[in-house]
Amino acid sequence: MPETNPSPDGARSRNQVSHQDRWDEIVDASAQVFHEVGYQAATVKEIASRVGILKGSLYYYIESKQDLLLAVIKREHERGLTTIEEDVATRAALPPERLAAFIRRWMRMTLETAPNNRSALNEMRHLDHEHGDLVRSTRARIHEFVRGVIVDGINAGDFDAVHPGVATNSLFALMDGTLAWYRTDGSLSPAEIADWYVTLFVTGLGREEASWAAAAGERRAAP
Amino acid sequence: MPETNPSPDGARSRNQVSHQDRWDEIVDASAQVFHEVGYQAATVKEIASRVGILKGSLYYYIESKQDLLLAVIKREHERGLTTIEEDVATRAALPPERLAAFIRRWMRMTLETAPNNRSALNEMRHLDHEHGDLVRSTRARIHEFVRGVIVDGINAGDFDAVHPGVATNSLFALMDGTLAWYRTDGSLSPAEIADWYVTLFVTGLGREEASWAAAAGERRAAP
Repeated sequence: MPETNPSPDGARSRNQVSHQDRWDEIVDASAQVFHEVGYQAATVKEIASRVGILKGSLYYYIESKQDLLLAVIKREHERGLTTIEEDVATRAALPPERLAAFIRRWMRMTLETAPNNRSALNEMRHLDHEHGDLVRSTRARIHEFVRGVIVDGINAGDFDAVHPGVATNSLFALMDGTLAWYRTDGSLSPAEIADWYVTLFVTGLGREEASWAAAAGERRAAP
Repeated sequence: MPETNPSPDGARSRNQVSHQDRWDEIVDASAQVFHEVGYQAATVKEIASRVGILKGSLYYYIESKQDLLLAVIKREHERGLTTIEEDVATRAALPPERLAAFIRRWMRMTLETAPNNRSALNEMRHLDHEHGDLVRSTRARIHEFVRGVIVDGINAGDFDAVHPGVATNSLFALMDGTLAWYRTDGSLSPAEIADWYVTLFVTGLGREEASWAAAAGERRAAP
């Protein structure tokens, strides 16, 4: 790699990046090992060897295996949190469009790092009580966002009067379930899978996509 | 318990029942321990102690821990297989009705033994290669049944031209995902959850329930 910036600051900045990259590698390897053998049987030694370092060196980054589990799960949940941010146009849209946009954001996010998300979901039950609470509160925020959009849709008459909590759980089961069967060389792309979930869920919530799209046009055209 | 039948035959029959009951208890305990600590960390000793027997006595029933995992998973899959059996009336019905009936049968089956099904799903990846193939072929039969109903529905014009394999995977993700959030003291009963999946999925596949029900009536009325 050419030394484009040999100043001490440049070097420090490169070291920081490298430290972050190495940590990301460690978290990836942890996710992989947890998936292969389960959290309880996974060893710090095996995870260290996957990234080519000694167990002792890995303890420079962590205090215990639990820190690695938390790191895997936290990283994916932080990525999850970004999916509840809406741009100005989407925030102003009708509930079915907002829900559709969320489904697309979530599917892009979750399939981008499918192996890590698979681990995060499967091994979440092995989190310590305190860490579990932290992660559950993040999940609750994401669920609350979706539930809010569904409630808005019910109130606006865009959706049938479903149980909003169960509808929210169903949507996440549907989306997260993709991790169990999705293959990067499968017949549908992540975007096509997301389209199908949008059709299934937004239509299934009670209105044909065409009809709410038309309704959206009318309401927007209204003064 | 009163001795209603003290004959030798009766005694033998009671022993057989008791052997089966004990084995069921062992399989239940295995499912529970696998769920709590994961298959790899689970010990035969702990499972034995849950049913109040010694580890050595448990080896009277099994050769290895893997046999217990297989038993947990096989039992639930055998129950799963019963859900693809249709009565005469259902077999003669239109695809949306057949799919709706299947969803109701599956949800009743899966929630009846929710903790065991949760273990079976989570720990399936720890099955030996050979056992894994056996279980996968059972799952394939069940999926094939559902896929067939969806294909029939598409061909009959009852469903939109979705990807039948992905639609099938989605339905199972939706239904099996229930295991992650279902609580027996929750606000919806298993039957109500099934109703919601029927609405979501059968409507989401492209036709309002009312419209296919009407179409079914018309087609039945036709000569």
